Amino acid sequence: MDKIKTPTLIVNSSICRNNIKIMAEKCRKSNVEFRPHFKTHQSLEVGKWFKDEGVNKIAVSSLEMAHFFADDGWKDIMVAFPINIREIESLNKLTEKSNVSILLAGNEPLPILTKKMKKEMGFFIKIDVGTKRCGFEPDSIVKIEETLELAKMNKKLKFMGFVTHAGNLYNVKSVESIPDKYKKTVKKLQELKKYFDRTYSDLIISWGDTPSCSVLDNFYDIDEARPGNFVYYDLMQLKSGVCNKESIAAVVAAPIVAKYVDRYEIVVYGGAVHLSKEYVNFEGQPAWGMVVFLSNNGWKFPDKQMYVRNIYQEHGIIKLEYDDFFSVEVGDIIGIIPVHACLTASHLKNNYYYI
Amino acid sequence: MDKIKTPTLIVNSSICRNNIKIMAEKCRKSNVEFRPHFKTHQSLEVGKWFKDEGVNKIAVSSLEMAHFFADDGWKDIMVAFPINIREIESLNKLTEKSNVSILLAGNEPLPILTKKMKKEMGFFIKIDVGTKRCGFEPDSIVKIEETLELAKMNKKLKFMGFVTHAGNLYNVKSVESIPDKYKKTVKKLQELKKYFDRTYSDLIISWGDTPSCSVLDNFYDIDEARPGNFVYYDLMQLKSGVCNKESIAAVVAAPIVAKYVDRYEIVVYGGAVHLSKEYVNFEGQPAWGMVVFLSNNGWKFPDKQMYVRNIYQEHGIIKLEYDDFFSVEVGDIIGIIPVHACLTASHLKNNYYYI
Repeated sequence: MDKIKTPTLIVNSSICRNNIKIMAEKCRKSNVEFRPHFKTHQSLEVGKWFKDEGVNKIAVSSLEMAHFFADDGWKDIMVAFPINIREIESLNKLTEKSNVSILLAGNEPLPILTKKMKKEMGFFIKIDVGTKRCGFEPDSIVKIEETLELAKMNKKLKFMGFVTHAGNLYNVKSVESIPDKYKKTVKKLQELKKYFDRTYSDLIISWGDTPSCSVLDNFYDIDEARPGNFVYYDLMQLKSGVCNKESIAAVVAAPIVAKYVDRYEIVVYGGAVHLSKEYVNFEGQPAWGMVVFLSNNGWKFPDKQMYVRNIYQEHGIIKLEYDDFFSVEVGDIIGIIPVHACLTASHLKNNYYYI
Repeated sequence: MDKIKTPTLIVNSSICRNNIKIMAEKCRKSNVEFRPHFKTHQSLEVGKWFKDEGVNKIAVSSLEMAHFFADDGWKDIMVAFPINIREIESLNKLTEKSNVSILLAGNEPLPILTKKMKKEMGFFIKIDVGTKRCGFEPDSIVKIEETLELAKMNKKLKFMGFVTHAGNLYNVKSVESIPDKYKKTVKKLQELKKYFDRTYSDLIISWGDTPSCSVLDNFYDIDEARPGNFVYYDLMQLKSGVCNKESIAAVVAAPIVAKYVDRYEIVVYGGAVHLSKEYVNFEGQPAWGMVVFLSNNGWKFPDKQMYVRNIYQEHGIIKLEYDDFFSVEVGDIIGIIPVHACLTASHLKNNYYYI
């Protein structure tokens, strides 16, 4: 760890590979295609660990990420964000390298897409299952039919099926409620698939969220799973009970730059531009991360939980317990479990360290 | 604006140059050195506009930024973050390019600094004026004296004075209270300077925060001003009354990727990895940005304020008024005033567009 000079994302390869393996096996057992979301790690190295598990389809959330992975040889990429027609040139370049599928969250982009796209690509209809983020409502059959009719005029566009992100499963009161919510939500997608299967063949339901994919033992009634966060998990998932401490695969290593004995607080180099400003509440106060102690082969959880209690652009303020305060020195590095691993990994994608 | 494909920070050069000019003139009038904090913009172009106003000293918040500007010819750089001794090699390289001053927020780094530093550098004692972020308490004379004695053993280290960041001025209830708070806080620094002036010569008080530097007409009793945010201002400063709409110099251009008429909401490509997750409350609800309408030579504020009401990794959800909803199309770009320009500019530093 002597090599670490600035805030760095430490990835524990054995934990991470194990998270990947568990999810890949669950997909195989459920007879479901595994299309992991690579926005969580944005790492070619982690990508290789997926390849080792037989994965050859991925999802990403931007065309920039799509090119990054396409250039590394990934040949089946879903750009899991509503198609941004201003990037049509970049999309055309991508289709020269890989099989690409895009998302329609409305029919507005179709005319210009049809006019400017060059090679064949697949498209999914994005279904909004209740988060009101984006997509078609599950019962808006007419709108979906209109969109499909419009798309039919373009022979290069192939309708693949329905895609959803069950964002509502991220803030459940208890993980026990997830299987029931999953079942109810999947039913809506099943009905859509059944309805449109009369006209289109081989439609699939592509489902993506870490909570349900982690909690369920079997992915019944879907065809493809697209979880992303499970690769590292994070404080948000730990708090909600979706993962346990042993599954956390990435922590931020932050150099300690100051200590204040009067308040048992340390200041670390590790702020909002590294961890992000995402927080969760613990003991009634916001926390921008949770402390672990680093060693050369990993990290361990302290007896009592301690948190990043304030955050600025570059500074993090950590409140320590008495004994822990005196066990660390300025110049040491301390580990921080990020609240939302996807954001933290995005900020630190050029500062990775694999152990 | 046709060139804009992905979330981009649009900088209005005339507004930005005017913000710089006003602050530079205020410093000249007050006979105070102007050492702007470049962490807000991280742009060589904006740096040139400061040079045009006669600025030759800057502050940055990381060694990476320091090298970035040193390589562009900046010769007097304060690294305004507690010295991180793990980066001593990078610091030594920096002193080969520029005059460097560092911050001591405690005495712990001194032994290793003394052992490993190569060229002369200045140092400031960081004073904590109440935010409990980092630095010495203003009344901790003994601790400061001990630190200075320790530093004296290193002939390459020159004591420059006291530096503070009045973070408590960022959340005042009304800007009218700022001058009085400024006065009280500066008095503490004046007392320190007076006390240590007996032993050291040419000590300065370096003061940095946008609220006081914007609101005050004259910077009495300080020697150097280090504001940063004023170069662009942002929604936080607008809300608190520190700036007005006409002073906002940077907005995020975000492509519209979906529209939902049932809720008058649009989805934009512009999320937490572009704007950051920093928010302020408006009308009792969090806002991750405020809407402006872009034109080729700038932007205008709508009659009624509208906000980014939800944010994800790449998506922003904006609630529009009826007429405004129907005036925009999927594929258009919309402007968003960021909540905290420093974070947004840090995320988008490679996606700038100057008008």
